[in-house]
Amino acid sequence: MTIVGHLINGEIREDAGRLQDVFNPATGEASKQVALATKATVEEAIAAAEAAYPAWRNTPVGKRAAVMFRFKALLEQHADTICRMIGEEHGKIGHDAAGELQRGIENVEYACGIAELLKGEHSRNTGPGIDSWSEFQPLGVVAGITPFNFPAMVPLWMYPMAIACGNTFVLKPSERDPSSTMFIAQLLKEAGLPDGVMNVVNGDKEAVDVLLTDQRVKAVSFVGSTPIAEYIYSTANANGKRCQALGGAKNHAIVMPDADMDNAVNQLLGAAFGSSGERCMALSVAVAVGDQAADTLVAKLKEAMKPLKVGAYTDSSNDFGPVITRAHQEKVVGYINSAEADGASVVVDGRDPQVAGYEDGFFVGATLIDNVTTDMVSYQEEIFGPVLQVVRADSMEAAMKMINDHEYGNGTCIFTRDGEAARYFSDHIEVGMVGINVPLPVPVSYHSFGGWKRSLFGDLHAYGPDSVRFYTKRKTITQRWPSSGVREGVSFSFPS
Amino acid sequence: MTIVGHLINGEIREDAGRLQDVFNPATGEASKQVALATKATVEEAIAAAEAAYPAWRNTPVGKRAAVMFRFKALLEQHADTICRMIGEEHGKIGHDAAGELQRGIENVEYACGIAELLKGEHSRNTGPGIDSWSEFQPLGVVAGITPFNFPAMVPLWMYPMAIACGNTFVLKPSERDPSSTMFIAQLLKEAGLPDGVMNVVNGDKEAVDVLLTDQRVKAVSFVGSTPIAEYIYSTANANGKRCQALGGAKNHAIVMPDADMDNAVNQLLGAAFGSSGERCMALSVAVAVGDQAADTLVAKLKEAMKPLKVGAYTDSSNDFGPVITRAHQEKVVGYINSAEADGASVVVDGRDPQVAGYEDGFFVGATLIDNVTTDMVSYQEEIFGPVLQVVRADSMEAAMKMINDHEYGNGTCIFTRDGEAARYFSDHIEVGMVGINVPLPVPVSYHSFGGWKRSLFGDLHAYGPDSVRFYTKRKTITQRWPSSGVREGVSFSFPS
Amino acid sequence: MTIVGHLINGEIREDAGRLQDVFNPATGEASKQVALATKATVEEAIAAAEAAYPAWRNTPVGKRAAVMFRFKALLEQHADTICRMIGEEHGKIGHDAAGELQRGIENVEYACGIAELLKGEHSRNTGPGIDSWSEFQPLGVVAGITPFNFPAMVPLWMYPMAIACGNTFVLKPSERDPSSTMFIAQLLKEAGLPDGVMNVVNGDKEAVDVLLTDQRVKAVSFVGSTPIAEYIYSTANANGKRCQALGGAKNHAIVMPDADMDNAVNQLLGAAFGSSGERCMALSVAVAVGDQAADTLVAKLKEAMKPLKVGAYTDSSNDFGPVITRAHQEKVVGYINSAEADGASVVVDGRDPQVAGYEDGFFVGATLIDNVTTDMVSYQEEIFGPVLQVVRADSMEAAMKMINDHEYGNGTCIFTRDGEAARYFSDHIEVGMVGINVPLPVPVSYHSFGGWKRSLFGDLHAYGPDSVRFYTKRKTITQRWPSSGVREGVSFSFPS
Amino acid sequence: MTIVGHLINGEIREDAGRLQDVFNPATGEASKQVALATKATVEEAIAAAEAAYPAWRNTPVGKRAAVMFRFKALLEQHADTICRMIGEEHGKIGHDAAGELQRGIENVEYACGIAELLKGEHSRNTGPGIDSWSEFQPLGVVAGITPFNFPAMVPLWMYPMAIACGNTFVLKPSERDPSSTMFIAQLLKEAGLPDGVMNVVNGDKEAVDVLLTDQRVKAVSFVGSTPIAEYIYSTANANGKRCQALGGAKNHAIVMPDADMDNAVNQLLGAAFGSSGERCMALSVAVAVGDQAADTLVAKLKEAMKPLKVGAYTDSSNDFGPVITRAHQEKVVGYINSAEADGASVVVDGRDPQVAGYEDGFFVGATLIDNVTTDMVSYQEEIFGPVLQVVRADSMEAAMKMINDHEYGNGTCIFTRDGEAARYFSDHIEVGMVGINVPLPVPVSYHSFGGWKRSLFGDLHAYGPDSVRFYTKRKTITQRWPSSGVREGVSFSFPS
Repeated sequence: MTIVGHLINGEIREDAGRLQDVFNPATGEASKQVALATKATVEEAIAAAEAAYPAWRNTPVGKRAAVMFRFKALLEQHADTICRMIGEEHGKIGHDAAGELQRGIENVEYACGIAELLKGEHSRNTGPGIDSWSEFQPLGVVAGITPFNFPAMVPLWMYPMAIACGNTFVLKPSERDPSSTMFIAQLLKEAGLPDGVMNVVNGDKEAVDVLLTDQRVKAVSFVGSTPIAEYIYSTANANGKRCQALGGAKNHAIVMPDADMDNAVNQLLGAAFGSSGERCMALSVAVAVGDQAADTLVAKLKEAMKPLKVGAYTDSSNDFGPVITRAHQEKVVGYINSAEADGASVVVDGRDPQVAGYEDGFFVGATLIDNVTTDMVSYQEEIFGPVLQVVRADSMEAAMKMINDHEYGNGTCIFTRDGEAARYFSDHIEVGMVGINVPLPVPVSYHSFGGWKRSLFGDLHAYGPDSVRFYTKRKTITQRWPSSGVREGVSFSFPS
Repeated sequence: MTIVGHLINGEIREDAGRLQDVFNPATGEASKQVALATKATVEEAIAAAEAAYPAWRNTPVGKRAAVMFRFKALLEQHADTICRMIGEEHGKIGHDAAGELQRGIENVEYACGIAELLKGEHSRNTGPGIDSWSEFQPLGVVAGITPFNFPAMVPLWMYPMAIACGNTFVLKPSERDPSSTMFIAQLLKEAGLPDGVMNVVNGDKEAVDVLLTDQRVKAVSFVGSTPIAEYIYSTANANGKRCQALGGAKNHAIVMPDADMDNAVNQLLGAAFGSSGERCMALSVAVAVGDQAADTLVAKLKEAMKPLKVGAYTDSSNDFGPVITRAHQEKVVGYINSAEADGASVVVDGRDPQVAGYEDGFFVGATLIDNVTTDMVSYQEEIFGPVLQVVRADSMEAAMKMINDHEYGNGTCIFTRDGEAARYFSDHIEVGMVGINVPLPVPVSYHSFGGWKRSLFGDLHAYGPDSVRFYTKRKTITQRWPSSGVREGVSFSFPS
Repeated sequence: MTIVGHLINGEIREDAGRLQDVFNPATGEASKQVALATKATVEEAIAAAEAAYPAWRNTPVGKRAAVMFRFKALLEQHADTICRMIGEEHGKIGHDAAGELQRGIENVEYACGIAELLKGEHSRNTGPGIDSWSEFQPLGVVAGITPFNFPAMVPLWMYPMAIACGNTFVLKPSERDPSSTMFIAQLLKEAGLPDGVMNVVNGDKEAVDVLLTDQRVKAVSFVGSTPIAEYIYSTANANGKRCQALGGAKNHAIVMPDADMDNAVNQLLGAAFGSSGERCMALSVAVAVGDQAADTLVAKLKEAMKPLKVGAYTDSSNDFGPVITRAHQEKVVGYINSAEADGASVVVDGRDPQVAGYEDGFFVGATLIDNVTTDMVSYQEEIFGPVLQVVRADSMEAAMKMINDHEYGNGTCIFTRDGEAARYFSDHIEVGMVGINVPLPVPVSYHSFGGWKRSLFGDLHAYGPDSVRFYTKRKTITQRWPSSGVREGVSFSFPS
Repeated sequence: MTIVGHLINGEIREDAGRLQDVFNPATGEASKQVALATKATVEEAIAAAEAAYPAWRNTPVGKRAAVMFRFKALLEQHADTICRMIGEEHGKIGHDAAGELQRGIENVEYACGIAELLKGEHSRNTGPGIDSWSEFQPLGVVAGITPFNFPAMVPLWMYPMAIACGNTFVLKPSERDPSSTMFIAQLLKEAGLPDGVMNVVNGDKEAVDVLLTDQRVKAVSFVGSTPIAEYIYSTANANGKRCQALGGAKNHAIVMPDADMDNAVNQLLGAAFGSSGERCMALSVAVAVGDQAADTLVAKLKEAMKPLKVGAYTDSSNDFGPVITRAHQEKVVGYINSAEADGASVVVDGRDPQVAGYEDGFFVGATLIDNVTTDMVSYQEEIFGPVLQVVRADSMEAAMKMINDHEYGNGTCIFTRDGEAARYFSDHIEVGMVGINVPLPVPVSYHSFGGWKRSLFGDLHAYGPDSVRFYTKRKTITQRWPSSGVREGVSFSFPS
């Protein structure tokens, strides 16, 4: 069986450590194995990154950008291969994988503009004959730890910008679906990146802990669940690193009575069930304001969900695929059971989806639950499956209070036509990414991605402008030249 | 004896807790007592700040700036009072206190420009009919914990910008010299700041720990020693707060053979001995490149130090005053002793300074030590006293290696006339604030203050542009309006 | 009779030239005379500005800002005097003059932040060992030519920022109401501005033409009517100067059927009649979409206009005052007559306002005209008086087409509750300053002021961020230091 | 003979107008003819651009950037073809053409980052419930008029950014060497640009005058000689367009006594003779400070010039090629003659270069003239040929005065090792692009290109950040929503 190894100093490497199966979630069968790096292997990767750092840091910014331009072209050229790999190991359908990849490529494109983004601040004459300026210099070796749900995109949030800033990188991707991540990282060599600037180690907590404690690693970016994010953040900080750690979410959409209801329903479908709901920006709660809006919404959703198809990535007419593991499938079904037991109404039931030919796949069908209340476990926790829950609120204020009271604050949305409602919502909601009639308000690559409250630990958001600040440190220089130098001297030395 | 209390919700308050003496370090006598806040008192301050937050956050930015304009005027109007208070409790001479205050006022001036600084990023047409923008919204209640050595300036690094950004504030200043800090904070009410937006609690670790753990506090700024900074940073982070914690320093000046030596000596005097060396930007190590430069430097320093006067703040002809406590005086003398014991040469000896009329004051005279080496404790640790040590290096590379190997990376400087040397130094030195022929490269208020390595924990520097990012969080909004609204509707309703 | 002279090199000066009466428009009597500068006098002012330039340009930016902080305080201190002077010569009521002055002070406040605004762009390692940066350096002597309608505010749009950028200035204000302008300019000396940095010459076309042609003047800012703006712009450009010239306006408000009609009416009153409509941002045309909206709007406006009071500035209960001259009064009445003759309906008629005790004042009462069409002269030209015309449109598209077809494009506004309508309007309207439910969308001081089409000639808008670019020129520096300098040399000289 | 036509609305077009020969300057023979557009043809191009504008303006910014990414790839793919075309018609050697093209491609790369560059400024709560933001919207149809000396690069300074900003474009390139320009423009269609967004008309003054006067053209960018630049600027402005017009140059290098002389000589060779000196950034005057520096410089230059080879583009070992026309060849020789007649010393004489096999080519050899003085015509005017003149100065101040007194202020450079001299020079020299030991200080693509004094007419420089401002206009929107909308209404309508 094929073994997915590590990429260290430009070479694919295996080590003598443990192996773990990689499954095809549509069939439930293991197709590959992934090597789980030992401490020594991770330290080799760090050493390679450290060795490559001085030369890369001194490479002119335009040459660093040139690598990103070529990398973008290679990603586009190999898109089909990458999407197939994502499908095989993650299970997402081709159109969804292509969307993921496109978003990732946009982060590379943003890194192509690094020369503009890295500009420092220059002040002439801060005092008599004194100039001051601030530069944004790279940190050294930085690390990324990424989740299974976007094996192409989330790593691309991190290392293109980190590398463009002049850092070198060690990535520890998810061990569930490592192939596309590894394939993409190898393209960088062809794009002209010197060996050692980018390294990938597969692994689990053993590898992660090396990255969190080794003194040569200066910063860590993480995306995953909130409990792990907290661990990563506090451990990295205690070891003198800067860290940004993105965690879980529970994204609510408020549906106002004046909303364009057909549009809202249409938008909610993709936002709730796309990628089987395994997105930290998935819209998993719809808060309808007023019973009339709620009834209309539920009726229209029920109707609109009928043609939704769950199945394997090989059939591009499917709307979404399986969830990532057998255990996760059981967890999602457990949340539906608990909601039902707590008194909510399962309007559309996806607990037994029947995918012909894929009886052992980890499938959950699109599920709609009405009359959910804020005291239910299914409301309080992140389900990370194709489950949309409807909560009813008497007023917009009550709906906003639910959102503000929830521990997560990643994304949210309002459906309305009213300018005042939208403005009040966007100003006062305690959430980092806000949509107005946009159900998945993932910021474009030239803004930055980040939640509030327990959805993100750290000062700076992922990708976009914030990532430049995260991957660099400010150096402020103050300069005054002593007089009586060559300038005056010359006048004295060479009288006419 | 006068008791310095707390400022909570616009009122001066005492509590039932412990009291601690406040000394005049020139006389060695206690002149006041400071109240040390209990947990309940700190919680009251936090509650006041939380209650004041919603209205202050919604106050238009121009009105928040107006408070800062008035605050600046009041600080200038009361400068003499403030400088006297600093002299009485900290011991620094009037010209030095005035310089400190002026630097603090410049931070208030920077906060006057908050409307410009808070501008978000707006993108039209990120998709068809879609707009996206990012705002920088305030955090809520934020806290500051500040050291004895700049009782006016360091608090002014923090709260003017925090408040201008729309936050409310709780300050825990040093209990050694609280009076000027408290006086200044009270001026904000006269400047028009609503009660509760700014609060001050005096205290010690008990008070600090409340600020670090209370869930209502969203962020903590700290300036002090590195061990405490580490504690503050990890505790605040573990409690879900963002934190920036500035610690210790060991600032080196490289003196190149081509330097304007008289100028370098002149600059070093103020940078090493000003404020008795109790500055995190004090220049405490001079690295001379080549023995010839070293010999010249030491000879000229020895001569130039002769007229230096140490004494009480009441005599403005003094160059610097006492150190802060008896214990600290003994610690500084201990470092001089250790250097001597380790084989260094005490060229000018300030261990017994003889200040007539102030025999019980905590004085240390200006001290120059030659032939210091990197293995000495006096080199490795921060002395925080009027002691300048000279180290000799064979080359500029060797001198730079010393600096880069030191655990601290706050400030540094090079004296040279050569453009290439200056540029190589500023590019490659692992220090956050770099001077070229400028021995105290404290950034002006419109750049930001921060060291590297173990001199600062956190991503963002203090004051200046970075402080806007520290005291705000990014919110990104994506907006699309459904069509068939009033615009098309009207066209239908009113055919010509 | 008092003569208003010139301010040259810090001294008030008269010259031997012509004099012109300054009227009190409420009484119709001349109260002062203003000196009209000869060519020689203007050249003296330019010479003073040129002489003051080198030292002022080299003054550290913080010291230039300090003058602005003091200037702001002095303006606030002398507000009553300034408002009285405006009332006497322009005629506007105290509350209106105070508003004008406040807006002007906000421009001074923005200039207080010049250190941040002047920051250049710095790039390390644009090539191997090469750094590049761009600075924004001052131009030298720059000039401003300003209109009668805002004698305090419009000059303050210009010279505070020009001076803060390091330029020196010659102002030629309106000869109709020169006293407040002159009084304000004199405060700069008290604020610490060196003599010669700011100069004021009163005068007419003779003075203007010197400013437009003298080679020592590097830039000209102008605000006035469009024909003069065109002349200024082409003449200044032909003489090698940069120029921004702001001209006339015809500002339309679209009133949509879903608008909050009472709010719209209330807003329109102030926007149409405030300052007698003598504002380039006055809202002089309301376009109602649909006859129902139009009928409601006209009925409510008619009712709301009843309590409006026109009168002298001495009575602060008046809503607005006289127009500036007898000739202008006749011109405004002429436009009302022409509208009536062209078939429009004069709903409220202000042609004979009857102001007791001020029978000779230049008053026009608030006038409302319905059924105006785009072919009428009163629609096509700027009236600059207290006249609001209502045009009826079948659809929002038709209303927008009117605005886009008009030669002016200064300000505009839409009244609606609908997010989509507002967004479409703001995106596609060919106007520089757009209000959504804001009838006078004058940008705040930290944005910039400027119209499109024939309302502004030039690339850059007035005040705010654009003014920094207008009053500075970019200099880009590329730097590489030759190796084998002192750095390597030392290593060679001092082997271990 | 091949005829080079026009590119209008995506199609190559000829018209019925005049034809002009296109020469190969190495052979002196005409190889093609170029069509000179009639007024009707230019108007067709403008009409095509106007028709394409609304859809292109509304195309999301990411899609506009995508065209630029593909355009960059196509330029790299077709580099050999483009360089050959440049060689055939301009005469420059392959390595030089490749350098030109690379610089042009870097401008396309900068345009790839348009999403970041177009971000507007957003302010929440400028007043109670009021938001304001400024957008940078495209202008409409804009035009470019470009010179013969960089047929690939200079057009690429203009239209990639103009188009990326959302404008449509009409280019009028030089009629001397139109083929590469036309070839490049056609690649845009393959890159995905819609027809009509980019148009090229070949022609002469007849075509230019249409672009300058047609009301549909909103802006004009020009690069050429100063007299034409002045005509373009004043004519465009008088016709209501914004304009930036770059003109001639006389770029001086100051050589200080402490300079690394070998390095300076090496740099001067390329800067003076590269591309036959037909560059607006060519370094045509060396000002040596002190006779010793001058003597050394001249001696070393004379020696270093010996191996320089002039010849045809087909031999890549040549250093530079012919000048553009027979007439220009004669003009350059005339300047050498005049310098000699005025008393200067022709140290190396290139007036009769003898290029075997190319006896009819328009060649001038590398020429060095010493003892030039500021009163000579050859000093005062731009030669635009491979001629380096040496002037001697007593002091750096005297050298700087020469530069500041010259009518042109495009580029300049100083050779020194001294930090103080470099800083004084860069601060006080009246030139827009300054090199410190960099003889051709052409700003990188992410800064902007522009001279001072009579080298540039307009406020904003070419390419880089300034080009975003040139190709867009600011629109400031102020928004307030009326209350009592759907938000409060809902609460009332749906009581629990």
